[in-house]
Order: sequence, then structure tokens, then C-alpha cells
Amino acid sequence: MNLIIDAGNHSIKLAVFEGGGIVFHQNVKTEHVARQVKEVCDHYPGIERSIVSSVGNLDRKVIAVLAVFCEVHELSHLSKLPFKNSYATPQTLGLDRIALAASAFYNNPKGNSLVIDAGTCITFDMVNDYGEYLGGAISPGLQMRYRALHEHTAKLPLLEPTAFIDFIGNSTATGIHSGVVNGICLEIDGVIDQYRSRFSDLTVILTGGDAQFLSKRLKNTIFADSKFLLEGLNYLLEYNRH
Amino acid sequence: MNLIIDAGNHSIKLAVFEGGGIVFHQNVKTEHVARQVKEVCDHYPGIERSIVSSVGNLDRKVIAVLAVFCEVHELSHLSKLPFKNSYATPQTLGLDRIALAASAFYNNPKGNSLVIDAGTCITFDMVNDYGEYLGGAISPGLQMRYRALHEHTAKLPLLEPTAFIDFIGNSTATGIHSGVVNGICLEIDGVIDQYRSRFSDLTVILTGGDAQFLSKRLKNTIFADSKFLLEGLNYLLEYNRH
Repeated sequence: MNLIIDAGNHSIKLAVFEGGGIVFHQNVKTEHVARQVKEVCDHYPGIERSIVSSVGNLDRKVIAVLAVFCEVHELSHLSKLPFKNSYATPQTLGLDRIALAASAFYNNPKGNSLVIDAGTCITFDMVNDYGEYLGGAISPGLQMRYRALHEHTAKLPLLEPTAFIDFIGNSTATGIHSGVVNGICLEIDGVIDQYRSRFSDLTVILTGGDAQFLSKRLKNTIFADSKFLLEGLNYLLEYNRH
Repeated sequence: MNLIIDAGNHSIKLAVFEGGGIVFHQNVKTEHVARQVKEVCDHYPGIERSIVSSVGNLDRKVIAVLAVFCEVHELSHLSKLPFKNSYATPQTLGLDRIALAASAFYNNPKGNSLVIDAGTCITFDMVNDYGEYLGGAISPGLQMRYRALHEHTAKLPLLEPTAFIDFIGNSTATGIHSGVVNGICLEIDGVIDQYRSRFSDLTVILTGGDAQFLSKRLKNTIFADSKFLLEGLNYLLEYNRH
């Protein structure tokens, strides 16, 4: 059994894999993570290995607790990757993007895959049919755009993401919803078209916290839940076994 | 002669119009504006009327200085508009957007016009061929996106706007440039396509501080310098004469 710990900018996910499938899955608050890790390890004594991916500042204590129970692999730019990494600055490639690329390669090893992660940022990551990670792009996420409009101007309000009714907003609120939601959808659809024009038979995966909100409004994407990234981490853990 | 004062979020523009054309034009820092207004009025004794459009917090002292020299119209949602305003919340419609719509109507009174202002925010404003202002959208601007990526994440650097080489960025920097610049261009091109599919013979005007940077990368827009907005203010001043 493998324990996966994915510590993102705003939340921490724990998952237990057995034979390639998820048997347990939980979101944990930062302050509870060490205790929760111990509980999961007590409950699943079959856990032999663990992988930790932290894009923020995960407490080192969690790693110490974990090491009592099992072998720990801390994902970093020194980890072995199952795909060829053609990123020019691999030491600055986000660990979440490494995990997404690993999952894309795992799920579609001989095809072209574009992974779009709609979270704090919207990241685009391309793995081609030679098993080569090429990079992509980083754009402001849904919440980030609403916050930026409010924080960086004198008069615009802070709004919650809301479906826009028409691309012509006839009030401040509907104008902002159109500018953010319609804008993001046009941007993502446009990016997908660019990739499709360069890569044949492209599989487009949409994941991340805002994926569900956006997926209804986008053309031709495959919606994937948070398991997609966790599968990538589980694959990386297996790949880095000694 | 008319004196136009356009006080935006980050800079103040002064312009003198005579017979519909600009004879003087200057960017002024906030702290120098009262003195500079006096100098311009001294130098152009023909100035009889003035219009002030302030989206930020223009010092009331400037209005007081101005009133010594000429009749002053402060643009507000109470000003008379030459077009029909179909905005549902006219009291919250930005003065800069009113001025842009006025200029669109002035320059193309019987046609469909979409004005895109690429400044702190990117605003979209539609005036149709019935002389009716319909609204539009408000989206984060170029600099705002770069700043948001830096300020709202733990690890992304603050970058200056730079042309992207390819939509697939293979480093953090090129990924951010692609996400911001390519993303904005796809968004704007996508919005233009939406408007073109609804309005025939659409004239698309691109203006604002980042218009020149973006115009090379966009399809089918007419680049307009800052005179476009000033012309709108001059038209509104004439339209509000007693």
C-alpha cells in the first residue's frame, strides 16, 4: 500500500493506493495533518511507502511522523521521472506540474496529452507521444482574477465566481463575471485550439478545484477529478522505488 | 477652446482642444496637476470650458483652480449623454467607459463599435448602430495578471511584460509570459469573435496603455492612441454646454 500526500497552496490531500487504485481519500487542514497521517497509518498497517509533494511549506514534523511508519520519498526536481523532461529550468518546475505530467504519461503513454489544471493558477502542461514533457503556461486562476480586479483598483467589488448570462454585461457585476468567466473560457478554448493545431489526436484533461465549474463552459475537454494528480504521484512513488 | 482633464488610476492627462482638434497634450504627475493646470490656462487664455473625469481621487483643489479660469463640467453619471445608455446600473458605470463610449459614438455614429481599453483592467464596451450603449466586460489587465501571479502564489516571480516566443513555455518565465500575453490575446480575439457574430460591420477600437504592446499580436483591431478617450471627453463637454 502507498500513502500519497499532496500539500498544495491551500489544502492538503491524503490518499491510500492499493494495487493502482485509491482505497482512501481525504482533505485535511494544515494544522491537523501530522495527527491525521498517524491515524491513517494506524488504520492501514499495509502502508509500506509514501510520497510527499509540497508546493507550499509543509511542516517537517509531518515527514518525521511518516518516517516512523514507512519509507518516504519527498518529490523534488531530483526525483526520477518516467517521461523525458525537456523543461529548460527543471529545478523551477512546480511539483504539481510534475505530478500532472506523470499522470498524463501514465494514462496515455503513447499519445499526446494536454493537462489543464484550474486551481490558484491555471497551468497548461504538454506531454507528447514520444513521452516527452514540453512545458506549457501559467495563467491567473478564477479566484485570483476576481481578487486582482478588487485589490488592484479603487472601485471594483470582490465577487464570487458566478455563471455569466451573456458576454455583454450590463452592470458592474455582470461585466466582471463576463470578463473573468467568459474570458477564462475563451482563453482556455483558444489555447486548446493552438495545441490541437500542433499535436494530432490530442487528449485534453481538465482538472483542479475549478474544473467542474469551468468544464460545462468549455469545448472538448475531459473532466478529471483530483484523483488524476494523485495517480501521478502514486506512479512517481512506484517509479522511485529503490 | 476646451481643456480636458482625465485623471485615471495611475496618471493624469491634460489636453487642449480647439475646433475639435487637439492643440496641446500632456501627462502630469498627481502632485503637479494644480500648478500645471494654472500654467496651461495662462498659456491658452482662449480656454472657456473644461471637463474633468476622475476615476480615482483627484484633489478638489484642482477643480477650485480651474474654476478661476473657466466654466467646469465634472463628468458624472448625471451628465447628459449623446448615446442611449442601456446599462442597468448607470451610477456604477466607470467614467472612463462613458468617455470611450462617447468617442465610439462620435467617431462612428451610425455603426457598431466595440472599444477595448487595455489599461489597469481590460474593458470591453459596445455601442450599437442605434446609438445605444450596451455594456461589455471588465477583465484583469496585463500588469495586473503578472502582479497577481506573483502576489497570490508562494513561488512565482514578478516579471515585466515580454513578448512570448511560443505558446509552449519551457521555463517558469516563458510559461508565465505565455500564460499572460498569449492568454490575453486569445481572450481578446475570442471576445471580438463573439461580438462579430452578433453585430454586423463591427468596428473594433483598441486603446489604453498596453494597446500598442498587444495590437501587433491581435487579429483585426484598429489601434487608437490616447486621443480616442480625450475626443470622447471633448464631445461630452460640448454636449453638456448650457
